[in-house]
Amino acid sequence: MDALRCLPGVGAKSAQRMAFYILERDRVGAQKLSEKIAQALEKIGHCQKCRNFSEVELCYICSNSKRDSRQLCIVESPADMLAVEQAADYQGLYFVLMGKLSPLDGIGPEDIGLDLLELRFSNDGILEVILATTPTVEGEATAHFISSLAHKYHIPVTRIAHGVPLGGELEYVDRGTLSRAFSGRLKL
Amino acid sequence: MDALRCLPGVGAKSAQRMAFYILERDRVGAQKLSEKIAQALEKIGHCQKCRNFSEVELCYICSNSKRDSRQLCIVESPADMLAVEQAADYQGLYFVLMGKLSPLDGIGPEDIGLDLLELRFSNDGILEVILATTPTVEGEATAHFISSLAHKYHIPVTRIAHGVPLGGELEYVDRGTLSRAFSGRLKL
Repeated sequence: MDALRCLPGVGAKSAQRMAFYILERDRVGAQKLSEKIAQALEKIGHCQKCRNFSEVELCYICSNSKRDSRQLCIVESPADMLAVEQAADYQGLYFVLMGKLSPLDGIGPEDIGLDLLELRFSNDGILEVILATTPTVEGEATAHFISSLAHKYHIPVTRIAHGVPLGGELEYVDRGTLSRAFSGRLKL
Repeated sequence: MDALRCLPGVGAKSAQRMAFYILERDRVGAQKLSEKIAQALEKIGHCQKCRNFSEVELCYICSNSKRDSRQLCIVESPADMLAVEQAADYQGLYFVLMGKLSPLDGIGPEDIGLDLLELRFSNDGILEVILATTPTVEGEATAHFISSLAHKYHIPVTRIAHGVPLGGELEYVDRGTLSRAFSGRLKL
């Protein structure tokens, strides 16, 4: 039960329920789970190029020659990368920070791989850096930092749009978002 | 009780609770409510210029000479207008549609005052039309319709930005919004 609590969202009660369930009813499934976790831990590391999770040195996106290597989208996590991959018709490559700058928590540029990113800026012939970090304080600070890094190498930088979400009523949108939607209005 | 149910969000149970409450405990408040509703219905009409609710012919925004009459922001409802007013540092005027185009419900251009809006386009020397209709299907259709109307009078049109709301995690943003955030990315 104690071990199960390492899973996010699992507290004492759920852990107890899960433990009793697998012992009573699904020993086969539990056996498989145990093996899969061990395998995953052993095999899955980070892509050498984009820092995303990968079983091999270069992940399936970085090694895909059909992707446009002149565009580089910066995201904070593998989950964000998947979200972009599923939503947007984006054909470029990614760089996964695996976190965001947060000096208070001791997370500096090296911890989110900005040294590796700088190498890519200088060597990879990138023509557009798309910042898709989250619009939180730390995400904005990270975006700002990366943006100045890119400008050092004269690479144009864009930021994904912030504003009213689709289907959202203006009335219920927070002030900050509405203010950004206004200042970022687009010519039709 | 039946009469109270005309209020939005008030069903049979709440109406009963309200009715008993005012009869037992707050007859003075109820008296005042009755008078205020009667007064409001009698006095509050629509502004002749922007169609917002107003006690006088020209509402407090349209009659404010400090506002910039060259900018016109189009919103769907008085609530949306208030939201913009509170959120954005906007100094122009408004036009309140009091609805949106919805042919299926029989709501056409005249029902949302587009004849009046066209008059303003042709006479008022407007230099920017800002479309702040909601990003729903009908809102978009309305925006499109007004945009072509404005183009007829060679008035530049902008649309408030749609994208990831502030503080939002990419992972939990719907696909449509993320896709719009990507296509609407801004140069930094």
